[in-house]
Amino acid sequence: MVQILNRGSIRPASPRLQRRNEQRRLEILQAAAKVFRRRGYAASGMREIADELDSSAGNLYYYFRGKDEILYFCQDRALDLMQAAVGEALRSAAPYAKKLESVIRAHVRIMLGELEGATAHLEVDALPEELRRAVVGKRDAYEHSIRKLVAAGVKASEFEPCDAALVTRAILGAVNWTARWYRPDGAQPVAQIAAALSDYLVRGLLAAPQAGAAP
Amino acid sequence: MVQILNRGSIRPASPRLQRRNEQRRLEILQAAAKVFRRRGYAASGMREIADELDSSAGNLYYYFRGKDEILYFCQDRALDLMQAAVGEALRSAAPYAKKLESVIRAHVRIMLGELEGATAHLEVDALPEELRRAVVGKRDAYEHSIRKLVAAGVKASEFEPCDAALVTRAILGAVNWTARWYRPDGAQPVAQIAAALSDYLVRGLLAAPQAGAAP
Repeated sequence: MVQILNRGSIRPASPRLQRRNEQRRLEILQAAAKVFRRRGYAASGMREIADELDSSAGNLYYYFRGKDEILYFCQDRALDLMQAAVGEALRSAAPYAKKLESVIRAHVRIMLGELEGATAHLEVDALPEELRRAVVGKRDAYEHSIRKLVAAGVKASEFEPCDAALVTRAILGAVNWTARWYRPDGAQPVAQIAAALSDYLVRGLLAAPQAGAAP
Repeated sequence: MVQILNRGSIRPASPRLQRRNEQRRLEILQAAAKVFRRRGYAASGMREIADELDSSAGNLYYYFRGKDEILYFCQDRALDLMQAAVGEALRSAAPYAKKLESVIRAHVRIMLGELEGATAHLEVDALPEELRRAVVGKRDAYEHSIRKLVAAGVKASEFEPCDAALVTRAILGAVNWTARWYRPDGAQPVAQIAAALSDYLVRGLLAAPQAGAAP
C-alpha cells in the first residue's frame, strides 16, 4: 500500500482530532471532485480547490501533499465504496439479477454523486506511477469481483451463458461513460439514471424464461 | 465544415494523382493511429508517425498540417464509417435487433481496426477548438441516429420500452470503453469481441416473447 495516510502530525492524534481531520479531508475531496469536474483535472490546482472551500491552499497542504494525492484519495475512496457494494451483493441471498442491479446502481451513484465526481474517477492516467499502480490494483480487484458475480449467475442458470469478462467490461464501460455526458444540472436525477442503466444492463444477461421449447 | 482538404497543390490534381494522394493520406492515418495507441496522443509527434512509415516528418507535412489535423482526420473518417453503417442499418429491411447488432459490430470493428485505432477515436478533447467542434457535431449526429434506431425498435414493439437516449449512451459507453482494455496482441480477435458485445447489448433491449401471461 501507499504510505500517505496520517500525515500532518508526528504523534498519534486523539480520536476526536482524528475524526475532525477525517471530516476535513472528506470536505476537501468533495470540493476537489467538483472542481475537477468543472475545470478538468489538468486545469485545476490547489488554489482552485481552496477557493471552492473558501479556504487557503496552505491549509489544504496540511491534509494533502498536492492535487495528485487528492485525486488519488478521490479514486481510492470511490473504489472502496464500490468494492463494498459488490462485496455486500456477493454475500446477500438475493437472486443474481438483484445483486448485479445493486452493484450497478451503487457504481453510478458513487460515480456521479456529489462526493466522488465522475471526472475524478476516470483520471487514473494523471496519477504519478506509484499512486496509479495502487488505484489500478483496486480497480482490477473490483472488476474481478463483478466478473465473479456474473459468472456465478451464469453457473446458477440465472444468466445466459456468456463471456463474463467481456460482459463485465461492457457494464463498466456503460457506467463509466456516464462521466462523459452527465451534467449535475441536467434534468435526470442520478437515481433515475442508475435505475435505467441497471435495468438495461441486467436484462441483457437474463436467461430466457424456461417456458417449454419456445425459441 | 472545416476547410482542410486538398492542400498541397495549387491547381486541381489529376484524378490519378488525387487517388495516390488519398492513398498516402490513408497510410499516414493508419500509421498515426498505431503510434497514438502505442505512445498516447500527447507523447506522439510528427517525427514518431514518420518513423512508423519509414518516412520523414517533412514528407508528412505535405499531406497534413500537423498531428492535430491527423487526429482530426482519424476521428472524422471513423465517424464517417460509423455513420455509414448506421445509415445502412436504418435503410435495411432487417429486424431492429439485426440492425442494431450490425451497427454495434461495425463500431467495434472501426474502433479497434488497424486503420482507425481506438485511442484516436476518443482523444476528442485534444483537438483545437474548431476541429473539436466539427468532430463533436458528427458524433452527436451519429449518436442521434442510433437513438432513432432504438426508438424505432421500441415503437415496432421489437424492443422493450426504454429511455432510448440513455440506452444509446450505455451502448456507446460499452463499445467505446474497449479502447481502455483492448490490446491488439491479445487473445480475442476483434470480430469475436464485436459479436459478444453486440449480442449482450441487443439482448438487453429485446421484448420478452409474447407467450401468454408468463412474467
